[in-house]
Amino acid sequence: MKKIKGGVTATQGFQASGLWCGIKKSGKPDLSLIFSEILSTCVGVFTKNSIIAAPLVVTKKKIKNNKAQAIITNSGNANCFTGKFGLTYAEKTSELAAKFLNISKNDVLVSSTGIIGKPLPFKKIKKSVPALVKGLSRSGANISAKGILTTDTFEKEIAVEIMIGKKKVKIGAMAKGSGMIAPNMATMLAYITTDVAISAPILKLALKDACSISFNSITVDNCMSTNDMVIVMANGLAKNKKITKKGPSYKKFYEALEHICLDLAKKIVIDGEGATKFITISVTGAKTDALAKKIAFVIANSNLVKTAAYGSNPNWGRVAAAVGSLGLNITEKQLKIKFSSFEKKDIGINVDLGAGSAQWTVYTSDLSTGYVKINGKYN
Amino acid sequence: MKKIKGGVTATQGFQASGLWCGIKKSGKPDLSLIFSEILSTCVGVFTKNSIIAAPLVVTKKKIKNNKAQAIITNSGNANCFTGKFGLTYAEKTSELAAKFLNISKNDVLVSSTGIIGKPLPFKKIKKSVPALVKGLSRSGANISAKGILTTDTFEKEIAVEIMIGKKKVKIGAMAKGSGMIAPNMATMLAYITTDVAISAPILKLALKDACSISFNSITVDNCMSTNDMVIVMANGLAKNKKITKKGPSYKKFYEALEHICLDLAKKIVIDGEGATKFITISVTGAKTDALAKKIAFVIANSNLVKTAAYGSNPNWGRVAAAVGSLGLNITEKQLKIKFSSFEKKDIGINVDLGAGSAQWTVYTSDLSTGYVKINGKYN
Repeated sequence: MKKIKGGVTATQGFQASGLWCGIKKSGKPDLSLIFSEILSTCVGVFTKNSIIAAPLVVTKKKIKNNKAQAIITNSGNANCFTGKFGLTYAEKTSELAAKFLNISKNDVLVSSTGIIGKPLPFKKIKKSVPALVKGLSRSGANISAKGILTTDTFEKEIAVEIMIGKKKVKIGAMAKGSGMIAPNMATMLAYITTDVAISAPILKLALKDACSISFNSITVDNCMSTNDMVIVMANGLAKNKKITKKGPSYKKFYEALEHICLDLAKKIVIDGEGATKFITISVTGAKTDALAKKIAFVIANSNLVKTAAYGSNPNWGRVAAAVGSLGLNITEKQLKIKFSSFEKKDIGINVDLGAGSAQWTVYTSDLSTGYVKINGKYN
Repeated sequence: MKKIKGGVTATQGFQASGLWCGIKKSGKPDLSLIFSEILSTCVGVFTKNSIIAAPLVVTKKKIKNNKAQAIITNSGNANCFTGKFGLTYAEKTSELAAKFLNISKNDVLVSSTGIIGKPLPFKKIKKSVPALVKGLSRSGANISAKGILTTDTFEKEIAVEIMIGKKKVKIGAMAKGSGMIAPNMATMLAYITTDVAISAPILKLALKDACSISFNSITVDNCMSTNDMVIVMANGLAKNKKITKKGPSYKKFYEALEHICLDLAKKIVIDGEGATKFITISVTGAKTDALAKKIAFVIANSNLVKTAAYGSNPNWGRVAAAVGSLGLNITEKQLKIKFSSFEKKDIGINVDLGAGSAQWTVYTSDLSTGYVKINGKYN
């Protein structure tokens, strides 16, 4: 696996663009488009929140046939809890992009991120879609990555190249996410483009597995969002022998996809709202992976552990109390808690249960005064 | 029900004392004693954390016979995650108090609150127990209430008087609790004294029910403690006809007990670490009480709802997202969210589900920069 330059447009046949349409007061890009020159195989993973934003309702419908050619995203407004108008505007955003892209409206996915419960300023989007489409280019990844950010402080991009048979296969990606980050899709968007030739069912499997150890193993504030999605578009332009089942080619592709997902997930945590520390919590010696994950998350979501990390205070009592709060049969004697480098930015917390060989790793940030300020004083 | 002056010593036959033995750096009282002049009926409710502090192990054993005559508490050190020595010191603290009180060591309960994982400075306690016993008085409630505080900013006391038949019955109480406050006993101690004559089984029932809507319906930071307990001592000196079953006398006593528990629980929330707001979350129109409670807690524990409250931002989108995160079948259309007086210190959040007549109320505080500072920069 070779790291290459660029993001979603590092892959063959993908273009992207971004611009400011007027939603964000800051004047920073708030509209983003990714476009595949040919129709792509497309799969997605979505938030498990029962209150889901309008664009997710629309996108889930459009993605059912496992095909898509474009994704349009606005930031600054989540278009969630916005009733009938919200749904109509999500549909119209997709239709409008389709019209100017001259493709079927069923092949344009739509997504929003930002504040919940405020009407989507559709007029601003409407007037900017032509320019957005016009701006598409093979070097548009970065401006497009900027267009999906909210409280993020930097754009999150990555691209890698692998060989499948004798063919070069590329995977590029971008993500956003800063607060409302919890397992089962944080307030997080991640778009992955690839020129690999792959069937939808096996791509779905790869994405599900890769998400499990990456996007679904991070938490910033244990607040599950209404708008999250991870989308992979695979246009097949690499012309490798189509991957349709598990095997050496799948393995290579999966490893690259996992690498990309984990890289983006970690970047989201590093850029967690107000984060001053990156915390890796590994639970080892568990009887099952599920138990290790549950324990890792209860530690990662403890405000007391997170504030201790903020204060560079290696308080293992708080870790023990968090584990105990699950009410499982875990007692003082069984628990081995180790900290690493608590003074530095990168903190490791290892909890060994001495009861088996299963393990899980979860990534989180600290809880700082910055987090409180960002979320208490926003507009 | 009549409110009367004083705390745990407002009731007949109870004495209390408190002093500084040297655990707290601040020089504030850190040792506390409550003593009943005669052996009392005694019941308790304890944390459900599977990692429990040494004094709880000892106290749970001693309380099994539903009898006790004294409670000794140190603050500033939780004596938790302290291994064999912790257990020995908890036992010895109880023994020592019993010796100077000249009563059976089985009748002295012991309790600790403070930092987890540091050895209990037993020598300091040991040298101060004689003075602590000597200091007992019928007006010692307040100094005793001070002796159990940690990050609390004020002592929490209440006393009421009721008539049972023609007898005056008094109930007095004190509590502490500020951070690590979550359902199933927060980092919270509450001691209730009463001169009522009552049997242990019916007292246990009353305490369980009263805790359910009070101490188990509050949260500050969703962090469950290792040291919590609520203890009621009833010495029977009011000489009412002994309450042994449900009926009018039980009802009167229960109402008073519930009032006391709710008053203390609310005081704990008001004094929540860094709290600037008191938030009452009521969920109505639910199919079951349990569901209403679950929803109320997921809102109360949402860092985004809590920071919004801190910033006086009535963001109902965050409330909706929190409810949805439970993944239940609750959709946008069903939810009715109302805020009351969001600019003031007292905030009300009502969520109506329109699906039934069950309801639950939970009390919480906001998440402030103060909370982060208190928990990040402690010693």
